[in-house]
Amino acid sequence: MTERVVLAYSGGLDTSVAIPYLAEKMNAEVIAVAVDLGQGGEDMDVIQKRAIDCGAAESVVVDAKEEFAADFCLPALRANALYMDRYPLVSALSRPLIVKHLVSAAQRYNGTIVSHGCTGKGNDQVRFEAGLAALAPDLRVVAPARDFAWTRDKAIEYAESKNLPIETSKKNPFSIDQNLWGRAVETGFLEDIWNGPTEDVYAYTADPAQPRAADEVVITFEAGVPVKLDGRALTPYQIVAEMNARAGAQGVGRIDMVEDRLVGIKSREVYEAPGALALIAAHMELENVTVERDLARFKRGVDQRWSELVYDGLWFSPLKDALESLIDDAQKYVSGDIRMTLHAGKATVTGRRSEESLYDFSLATYDTGDTFDQSLAKGFVQLFSLPAKIAAARDAKRA
Amino acid sequence: MTERVVLAYSGGLDTSVAIPYLAEKMNAEVIAVAVDLGQGGEDMDVIQKRAIDCGAAESVVVDAKEEFAADFCLPALRANALYMDRYPLVSALSRPLIVKHLVSAAQRYNGTIVSHGCTGKGNDQVRFEAGLAALAPDLRVVAPARDFAWTRDKAIEYAESKNLPIETSKKNPFSIDQNLWGRAVETGFLEDIWNGPTEDVYAYTADPAQPRAADEVVITFEAGVPVKLDGRALTPYQIVAEMNARAGAQGVGRIDMVEDRLVGIKSREVYEAPGALALIAAHMELENVTVERDLARFKRGVDQRWSELVYDGLWFSPLKDALESLIDDAQKYVSGDIRMTLHAGKATVTGRRSEESLYDFSLATYDTGDTFDQSLAKGFVQLFSLPAKIAAARDAKRA
Amino acid sequence: MTERVVLAYSGGLDTSVAIPYLAEKMNAEVIAVAVDLGQGGEDMDVIQKRAIDCGAAESVVVDAKEEFAADFCLPALRANALYMDRYPLVSALSRPLIVKHLVSAAQRYNGTIVSHGCTGKGNDQVRFEAGLAALAPDLRVVAPARDFAWTRDKAIEYAESKNLPIETSKKNPFSIDQNLWGRAVETGFLEDIWNGPTEDVYAYTADPAQPRAADEVVITFEAGVPVKLDGRALTPYQIVAEMNARAGAQGVGRIDMVEDRLVGIKSREVYEAPGALALIAAHMELENVTVERDLARFKRGVDQRWSELVYDGLWFSPLKDALESLIDDAQKYVSGDIRMTLHAGKATVTGRRSEESLYDFSLATYDTGDTFDQSLAKGFVQLFSLPAKIAAARDAKRA
Amino acid sequence: MTERVVLAYSGGLDTSVAIPYLAEKMNAEVIAVAVDLGQGGEDMDVIQKRAIDCGAAESVVVDAKEEFAADFCLPALRANALYMDRYPLVSALSRPLIVKHLVSAAQRYNGTIVSHGCTGKGNDQVRFEAGLAALAPDLRVVAPARDFAWTRDKAIEYAESKNLPIETSKKNPFSIDQNLWGRAVETGFLEDIWNGPTEDVYAYTADPAQPRAADEVVITFEAGVPVKLDGRALTPYQIVAEMNARAGAQGVGRIDMVEDRLVGIKSREVYEAPGALALIAAHMELENVTVERDLARFKRGVDQRWSELVYDGLWFSPLKDALESLIDDAQKYVSGDIRMTLHAGKATVTGRRSEESLYDFSLATYDTGDTFDQSLAKGFVQLFSLPAKIAAARDAKRA
Repeated sequence: MTERVVLAYSGGLDTSVAIPYLAEKMNAEVIAVAVDLGQGGEDMDVIQKRAIDCGAAESVVVDAKEEFAADFCLPALRANALYMDRYPLVSALSRPLIVKHLVSAAQRYNGTIVSHGCTGKGNDQVRFEAGLAALAPDLRVVAPARDFAWTRDKAIEYAESKNLPIETSKKNPFSIDQNLWGRAVETGFLEDIWNGPTEDVYAYTADPAQPRAADEVVITFEAGVPVKLDGRALTPYQIVAEMNARAGAQGVGRIDMVEDRLVGIKSREVYEAPGALALIAAHMELENVTVERDLARFKRGVDQRWSELVYDGLWFSPLKDALESLIDDAQKYVSGDIRMTLHAGKATVTGRRSEESLYDFSLATYDTGDTFDQSLAKGFVQLFSLPAKIAAARDAKRA
Repeated sequence: MTERVVLAYSGGLDTSVAIPYLAEKMNAEVIAVAVDLGQGGEDMDVIQKRAIDCGAAESVVVDAKEEFAADFCLPALRANALYMDRYPLVSALSRPLIVKHLVSAAQRYNGTIVSHGCTGKGNDQVRFEAGLAALAPDLRVVAPARDFAWTRDKAIEYAESKNLPIETSKKNPFSIDQNLWGRAVETGFLEDIWNGPTEDVYAYTADPAQPRAADEVVITFEAGVPVKLDGRALTPYQIVAEMNARAGAQGVGRIDMVEDRLVGIKSREVYEAPGALALIAAHMELENVTVERDLARFKRGVDQRWSELVYDGLWFSPLKDALESLIDDAQKYVSGDIRMTLHAGKATVTGRRSEESLYDFSLATYDTGDTFDQSLAKGFVQLFSLPAKIAAARDAKRA
Repeated sequence: MTERVVLAYSGGLDTSVAIPYLAEKMNAEVIAVAVDLGQGGEDMDVIQKRAIDCGAAESVVVDAKEEFAADFCLPALRANALYMDRYPLVSALSRPLIVKHLVSAAQRYNGTIVSHGCTGKGNDQVRFEAGLAALAPDLRVVAPARDFAWTRDKAIEYAESKNLPIETSKKNPFSIDQNLWGRAVETGFLEDIWNGPTEDVYAYTADPAQPRAADEVVITFEAGVPVKLDGRALTPYQIVAEMNARAGAQGVGRIDMVEDRLVGIKSREVYEAPGALALIAAHMELENVTVERDLARFKRGVDQRWSELVYDGLWFSPLKDALESLIDDAQKYVSGDIRMTLHAGKATVTGRRSEESLYDFSLATYDTGDTFDQSLAKGFVQLFSLPAKIAAARDAKRA
Repeated sequence: MTERVVLAYSGGLDTSVAIPYLAEKMNAEVIAVAVDLGQGGEDMDVIQKRAIDCGAAESVVVDAKEEFAADFCLPALRANALYMDRYPLVSALSRPLIVKHLVSAAQRYNGTIVSHGCTGKGNDQVRFEAGLAALAPDLRVVAPARDFAWTRDKAIEYAESKNLPIETSKKNPFSIDQNLWGRAVETGFLEDIWNGPTEDVYAYTADPAQPRAADEVVITFEAGVPVKLDGRALTPYQIVAEMNARAGAQGVGRIDMVEDRLVGIKSREVYEAPGALALIAAHMELENVTVERDLARFKRGVDQRWSELVYDGLWFSPLKDALESLIDDAQKYVSGDIRMTLHAGKATVTGRRSEESLYDFSLATYDTGDTFDQSLAKGFVQLFSLPAKIAAARDAKRA
C-alpha cells in the first residue's frame, strides 16, 4: 500500500509546492490539512481546492476557530502570557492545535508520515515535533525546508517546471504568520535591528498616530475568562475577534522586539495583537483587585514559566499541566467588570468592579468610615524589619 | 539638655504644624530637614524659612537631586523595577534617601528622636522605620499621625490656634507624593475604583489624546545606565529630568492601578512616571539585545524580587545587596543606543545598536549569508522534547 | 450572659493554671479543648478530668489522630516539606488543626474568646492567630503569656496559692512540643549554640550509635501518599506511627539546627521526626522515578514555598491552596514501591519499582537492547549550548 | 602539516586504544592530556608513559589538584550544590577544568581537533562540548564512542590486533568516574533500579554499618570556604582530601538515586562523596547562623539553579557567572567554626560559633536577659495575616 503523508497546509506557495514534491520524493499520497484559526485572508474553500489542484489525494479543512479561542487563547490569557514580558505567543499557541488536527487526520486517513513547512532555525519546528512526539510518537516527520534544504527559489522553479496552479511572481518581503490571537512579521529589512518598522508592515492595526475618537468597552470576566463585551454575552472567538477589531482600529497592540529563540539565537520580530494585549491588560487589573497578594506575587513566576514553556514548544508536557492547575485555582475569583478606553495605541483600564473584590473601601479610605487599626502598625514594622536590622548591626560592627 | 527631634519636613501643612506640636508634646527642639529630590514645586529657600517661622531650632535643606538620580533611580532602572509589573517605585525609592539625610542631621545636630508624617496604614512608615532600624537603631521614632492619631483637621485647628504662618484653607482632594522618578496620587474620589481619573489628577504628563507632533530620542547606555540623550553627555539627574519633560509632553507614563500594600490591604493608586517608564522600556529592549537568554530569563525573577523588596521598605537589607550583585554582573554588557519614538502616550523603541549585541545577523537571516547549520536542529528537537515524550507515552498508557 | 473562653488545653502546668486565671481575669467561663494529635504521653481522659478539676466549665477531648495524619501530615509529605531543607514542620502542621477544633468548640459552646498558651516571640502565636483570622475573624484572642506577661514562675505561684491539682515541682529544662509527625525541643542549655544535644534530649529516637540489626521496609505509595507497609494496607495514622516506631528504634530522624523564626529572630531547635524523615526520603526517590524532569525542577521551588508558608502560619491562605493544586497534579503518577533500609540513624532507599516509572531500561542501558539514538546528541549539544557560545565569543572580544 | 588531535586521556582501555585509532582515522598526531584531579588510582607517570607506548606524539600530565579544589569544588560548596537535592556534581565539576587544560594543550601543541571518550547518551559530552564551544569555538570535536559508534568490544579487539600495551582482560562491571569531590558508579546490575547496591560498589567509603569509634572535627570557614580542620590551616585540596579520608572511614557520603539526565532520560546512579557531603552539611549550618532570613530563602533557589546549570554543562555561561556574584555577596559573613561528629554513615553538626553570628542569645532566650519586646507581636501577627484574612472572608461569603 502507498504511504500517506499528512501535510500541514497553508494554501501558500511553499506548502502548495510541497504537495507534488513530497508525493514524488516520498513516493506517497499527500493529505493536505488546512486549519482555520481565525487568521482571515483567503477563503478556506479556495485553499481546499488548491490542494487538490496541486495533486493532494485528500484535502481537509478544519474550522478550529472556537476551539483555538477557548482552549488555546484563553489559557494564555489566564496566564497573562507574555514571553519576555512582551510577546503574547501568537504562533506558539497555534502549533499544538494544528498538531492535534494533523494527528486526527493521520488516524482517519491512515497517514504514517507528517510534514510541515518549518525551517531548521525557527521555533515552530520544535513546537510541531514536540507536539507530535507527545501525541503520536509513531508518526515519522518530514520537514522539506529543513531536511531537504528546500528553499523558496527552488520551490518557485519546481512550481513553474510542473506548471502548478499557484502564483509564483508575488514577492512578499516578509515572513508572516497570523491567527486570531495576533500576527507575526519577520525577515526583510527588519533583520537590521536599527531599522524601524514601516507602516506597511502592519495589517491588524491602524496607525496609532492618526487622530480619531476614543472607544470604550466594558469586559466582563468569569473565573478569569471574558464572557461579555458591553453586557453582550459572546463566545470566546467572538470576544477576541471583536476586541481585535475595536482595539486594532485604535492602533493598539503593536510590538517590536529582539527575542530569544529556543534554538539559541536572537531574532527580530514585529507583532500585532490588539485583542490579546487589551484583554491581558484588563485581566491583569482584575487580578490586582481579586487575587490575594502572596498568590499574586507567586503567580507572576508561574505565568512567566508557562509562557516560556509554551514558547519553547512544550504545550503537551507535565509541567504545563501542573502550572495550569495552579493557575486554574488562582482564577476562581477573577470575576467582574473592567472598563477600558481604547485610544491612540493604548488600552487603558479606567474602572473595575467585582463581587469578589478584595479591595475594601473601609480599610483603604482615609475618610470617615476608616476601620483600619493604625496602632497595629508599630509592632508590625518592627518585627517585619527585625532580620534586616540585626544584620545591619552586624555589618556596622564589621565596617 | 533639651532633646532634639529631627523631622522629615516637606514644607506642607502637616509637617509645618508638626514643628510646634512636636516641640510641645516631646518637650524638645525640632530640626527640620527638607530634601530636594527633584520634586519641583516650591522653592527650597521658602521651605527652609517656613520651618524657622514655625519654630524650628534648625532648618536644613539638602540638595539630593543628583544623589537620588544616581544611587536610587538608576539602580531601579537596572532592575527594570516595576512593582506588580506596573509601578516604578516612585515613593519607595525616596524614603531610604531621606532616611540617610535624617540620620546625618541627627548626628550633626545631636538628635535623639526622628519624626515623619506617615500614617499607620501606608507603606512609607515601614520604609522610614526599616531604614532607621538599619542605619541608626538607637534613634527613637515618633510618627504623630500614627502614634498620636493626628489628623488634618486637628492640624488645621492647631495651626489656626497658634497663628502659624501657613495656608490652611486650600483643600487638595488628593494625597500626593512626587520626586524626580514620578508622582503618586491617591485618595479622594479615586477611592471608588470604578471611577476613572480626571485630567486634573495629572501634573507631570500632558493629555495623551491631544494631537501633537511626535518626538524621537536616542538614548545611549553604558553598563545598564543612560549616559547620553541624542548624543549629548548628561548627568543622571539631567537625563531623567529631560526624559520627564519630553515624554511627559507626549502624555507618556500614566498608570492607574489597584495595588497590594505591605500592610496587607489593597489600595487604588494613580501614578505619572514619564521619564521612568520611557527609560525602562529602552533599557529592557537593550537587555533583549545584549543579555544571554538563560540569564535574561532568570533576571526577570530577580528584578521582581528587587522591586517587591524595595516596595516593602527593605532597601537596606542583605537580600537587596545580593540581588544587586547579580544585577550588576548582568549589566556588564548592556551598552549601546536605543532609538525611541515618544508620541500619544507611548514610548516605542524603533531601533537598537550595540557593540555588545548578541544578535548575530548571519545566524538570524534567512537571506544570503546565513551561517546557521539547520541539520543540527533535528537532534536538538528530539532530545529537547524527550522527557515530555516519555511522560506522554506513560500518560497514554493510563488513559 | 457570662462570656466563654475556648482554651487550647494541653494538660500541662501553663494551660491548667490558665483555666482559673482566665476565668478570673476575663470574668468568663472556660471551655478547655484538648486535641489528640498522636503525641502520646498522658491519657486523654486524665487530661480531660484535670481541666474540670482546675475549674473548666466544659472539658472537651478531640481524637484527631487520623485527621491529623491524613489532612496535615500527608500534604506535607507530598510537598516534601522541609523548612530550610531540614525541619519537617512538626508544630506548624498541628496549629491549624487545633484552630479548626477551637473554632468548632466556640460554635458549639457559644465561645466568643479564644485563648492559647503561646508567647510573643515564637511562631505558634502567628499560626494560631492567622488561622483564627481566617476561620473565625469575629473571635477575640487572648494569649496570657504574651498579653499579660504571664510567666512560668507566676503560674507556679498562682497554682500554689489556688491549691490547684497540678504538679508544680517538676522542672523540665526544655520547652517541648510533640505530635505524630515529630517532636520539638528548645531552650535550656541548647540556647548556647556551641553546646551539642545530650542523649536525654531525645524521646522518639534511640541512640543511633548503638549497634543493632538493620530493619528493612517496603513502602507502597498511591498518588503520592503511602498506603501500605510491607504489603499491609494501613491508615495514614497507622503508617506514620509504625514508621515512627521502626525508624525511631534505629535512631533515624534527629535534627539539630539554627532556624529563622517568622518573628525575625534566629533560634536553636532540636527535632526528632523518624517517620516523617524516612517517609519523605522514600517519597522523594519515588518522585525521582515517576515525575518528569522539568516538573520535578519546578516543584522543588513550589515545595520550598509551601514549607515557608506553612511554617509562617499561613495554612489557610490562597497561595497555599494554589500550590497544592499544582502539587496534587504532580502526584498523579507518584505510585509504586520503595524499599528502604533503616539502620544506624539512616533511612536509605535501596530499591524502587513503579508501573508509572519514567525510567526506561532500554533507553538507559549501555548493554544489549539500547534504543537510544546517539546520533541525535551532536545537534542537541550544539544548539543547547549556542547562547552561551555566542556570549562567550562576545566576552572574548572584550577581554 | 599533519593535524594534531588533543585527547582527554584517562589511562584506561578506551582512551588508550583511541590513541592509535584516532591517529589512523583522522590521519593525525595525538597529544594525550591526563589531568590529575585527585582521583587516586594509578601513578600519573605510569599513565603518561602508557600514552607514549600507545603511540601518542606527546603525553602531558597536568597536576590540577589544588586548582580543582579551589576553583571548582569550593564554588560548589558555597552554592551547597546538590543536584536534585542529592548529588554533589562530582563529574560535572571536573569536565570544565579538563576542557581548560585541553584548550591550553591545543594552543601549546598546535592542536586543531579535540577528542573525548564520552558516549552520546550521557551528560559529559555536553559538558565537554559546551565548554569547548565557549573557550575555543574554532576547535573541532571528535568523540569516537559517539561519532564512530566505537564500543568496548571493538576497542578490545582493536587493542589485541594492534598488540597495544594495555590490559584488556579485566572486566569491571561498572562504569566509574572519580575525582577529589567524589566517585560515580553506574551500569551493570544497577541498571535494574530494584537492585540495591552491594558493598563492592564502594571504594571511597567504609561500610557504615560496621561498629567503630566516632570521629569529631572542627571546621573553620572564612567567607564560605573551609580554611582549617581542628585548628590546622590547610589548602583547599588538603581539606577535601582529609575530609574524604575521615568521613569516608565512617561510611559517610553514599548516595543511590534515579537522576534526570540532560539528554532527556532517567538513569540510576550510585555516588560516594564523603568529604563533599560533610562539608556541605557544615556549610549549610554555618549559613543558618550567619545569613539573614530573606537572603537565605532566596539563595536556596539560586543554589538550585547553579546546580542545574553546572550539571547541564553550562559552567562557562553568563548565568552561572551572575549567580556566583550573588553567592559571593551572600558569603561575606559565612565565617566561623562548625563542630561535627562523623559516625555510622552520618555527619552531624553539634556546635557552631561565629563572630558574624546573627543568632542573638538575648533575643532568643526565654531566661533572664530576654530583650525581645513581646508586645510588638500582636500588631505584627494581625497585619502579617491580613491579606489571608480578607481573602478568607471573601471565600466564606462564596461558600
